Amino acid sequence: MEKIKVAQFGLGPIGLECVRWILKKPTLELVGAIDIDPEKAGKPLSTLLGIKKLSGISVSPDLGKALKKSKPDVVLHTTQSSLEKVFPQIEAIVKAGINVISSTEELLIPELQHPLLARKIDQLAKKYNVTVLGTGVNPGFVMDTLPLCLSSMCLEIESIKVRRDLDAGKRRLPLQMKVGSCLTTEEFLNLKKEKKIGHVGLMESLDMILKGLGWVPDIIEETLDPVVADRNLETEYLKIMKGQVCGIKHCARALRNGKELVSLDLRMYVGAPESFDLIEIEGVPPIKARFMGGIQGDRATVAALINSIPRVLCADPGLLTMREIRLPMAFETLGV
Amino acid sequence: MEKIKVAQFGLGPIGLECVRWILKKPTLELVGAIDIDPEKAGKPLSTLLGIKKLSGISVSPDLGKALKKSKPDVVLHTTQSSLEKVFPQIEAIVKAGINVISSTEELLIPELQHPLLARKIDQLAKKYNVTVLGTGVNPGFVMDTLPLCLSSMCLEIESIKVRRDLDAGKRRLPLQMKVGSCLTTEEFLNLKKEKKIGHVGLMESLDMILKGLGWVPDIIEETLDPVVADRNLETEYLKIMKGQVCGIKHCARALRNGKELVSLDLRMYVGAPESFDLIEIEGVPPIKARFMGGIQGDRATVAALINSIPRVLCADPGLLTMREIRLPMAFETLGV
Repeated sequence: MEKIKVAQFGLGPIGLECVRWILKKPTLELVGAIDIDPEKAGKPLSTLLGIKKLSGISVSPDLGKALKKSKPDVVLHTTQSSLEKVFPQIEAIVKAGINVISSTEELLIPELQHPLLARKIDQLAKKYNVTVLGTGVNPGFVMDTLPLCLSSMCLEIESIKVRRDLDAGKRRLPLQMKVGSCLTTEEFLNLKKEKKIGHVGLMESLDMILKGLGWVPDIIEETLDPVVADRNLETEYLKIMKGQVCGIKHCARALRNGKELVSLDLRMYVGAPESFDLIEIEGVPPIKARFMGGIQGDRATVAALINSIPRVLCADPGLLTMREIRLPMAFETLGV
Repeated sequence: MEKIKVAQFGLGPIGLECVRWILKKPTLELVGAIDIDPEKAGKPLSTLLGIKKLSGISVSPDLGKALKKSKPDVVLHTTQSSLEKVFPQIEAIVKAGINVISSTEELLIPELQHPLLARKIDQLAKKYNVTVLGTGVNPGFVMDTLPLCLSSMCLEIESIKVRRDLDAGKRRLPLQMKVGSCLTTEEFLNLKKEKKIGHVGLMESLDMILKGLGWVPDIIEETLDPVVADRNLETEYLKIMKGQVCGIKHCARALRNGKELVSLDLRMYVGAPESFDLIEIEGVPPIKARFMGGIQGDRATVAALINSIPRVLCADPGLLTMREIRLPMAFETLGV
């Protein structure tokens, strides 16, 4: 069987973890690695991974050249959250006739905030006969794809509520920083004003559920608040003093006629007593699911990207969402 | 917008409930109702439904004539569990150029027990450019599609365990009878020998997970045991004496090198202290989900059938499984 050629674009923690798993999956072949960071450019990938041997793949800073040389079937794209910023990257990959699976949060439902860019990508993807998909664990699964999948068991639905609590203290440092650890409340609120803090993708998740179910709300609300430490906290990386920010509570709601249709409630903070995901569908029949420990972030995002490869390769061309590809599932899970 | 024309074939409790919901969904139009039961044939559907008016649809006992007259886009098929028995029905619908969504348990993974019939249906469906899909809550979702969907968050998987406990005492009489209520253990074991008792579809669910993940086990086990009442039990319909059978414990396992890959454990009995579904994936990352109250059977099966309509209408032609259609989700959930 011919292997699927994969190139990795973006070599941060998620991208490097993707590389590790591409190397492990028998039907995948890593053919290229791209990162624009001058610190990484030109280095052997093995150095970045901290492993000994890796058949001569070095980090290329030049996307165009790298794609031309490596001719991948698909690029795993893990660079930035903003579709505006990554648009030229996606455009270049698509124009090279290559499929894209991206962790860019805004790509989950790109037409929500960037309808023009979304249409451009969709047209290009169809022209070049490739598929572009945004995915991940959140956004991409826990607060959107999974509740939609569960809704398939319902005939009537009054409301969908998802709550995700995550103890940031047990996650890597970038996440602890991302949720505002050690800031003062004032600093947090200033960052909030500049839209430099908060979970990216919450409104995309909300929109994915609403559009998926064909629901048209008359009010959409978004709130972002700091969680303040009620005691001194200590993680592997940080000390947070009582009164400092230790995380975020980021919520989105859609209402119609005063009734809540969808509520997404995301709490990521150091010292959360329990990590869990809770999905509640009020409907016929009702569904209430609790995911003990929560679906774990970083590794699940890598899984979402890797496991989408076979799905994207047999999908229709265009800019698709998780609603338009076949049932997501794992493949080559080793251990067997 | 043009409505989707639907005919209902099979007017037992599930089929009648399908009819009720087809009538409620604005984009669906009920164009025919078929049942071979002479008791039902010719009767106005409204009589069977116990409602006053229903624009003149009567139950037809003749599938061919009914399809010719009503020209549906899709037939919801809820007649029997055995593919061998329903094959001529499916064949006739497909040859009329009409899509089929069926609750026939063996159709979930038809090639498992009837590879020749499966190939025939697939070839016919492709020839007549229609899609045939088997679905439901179990088999169809809780013990197969849903665990597979959750596996998409995993990079490595050691094992998948699903347990479904269901208090049959809270379900309709046919289910209480189906699980052997009031039988002696001896009667139960005789029925088991004749393959006349037990959940149909468990091996299909097991196979769907195994093939979905590409796992090849070296041992597959199936056990079916009676649950015996440890006290007198009473439901809305039945009295079960202590010592009589009150339900079933039906399990399927797949092992490789002595290690359990998949375990499905289904317990349906009167007096179960709690109904719930539990899905545990041992893997990277691990996933453990508990569905409080369980995903409720009959209504969820009707939902699975109805909600598959838009998915099947945009699917590739052929005999497909839940793995090959787009993410299942609800539509026209009213309440909004």
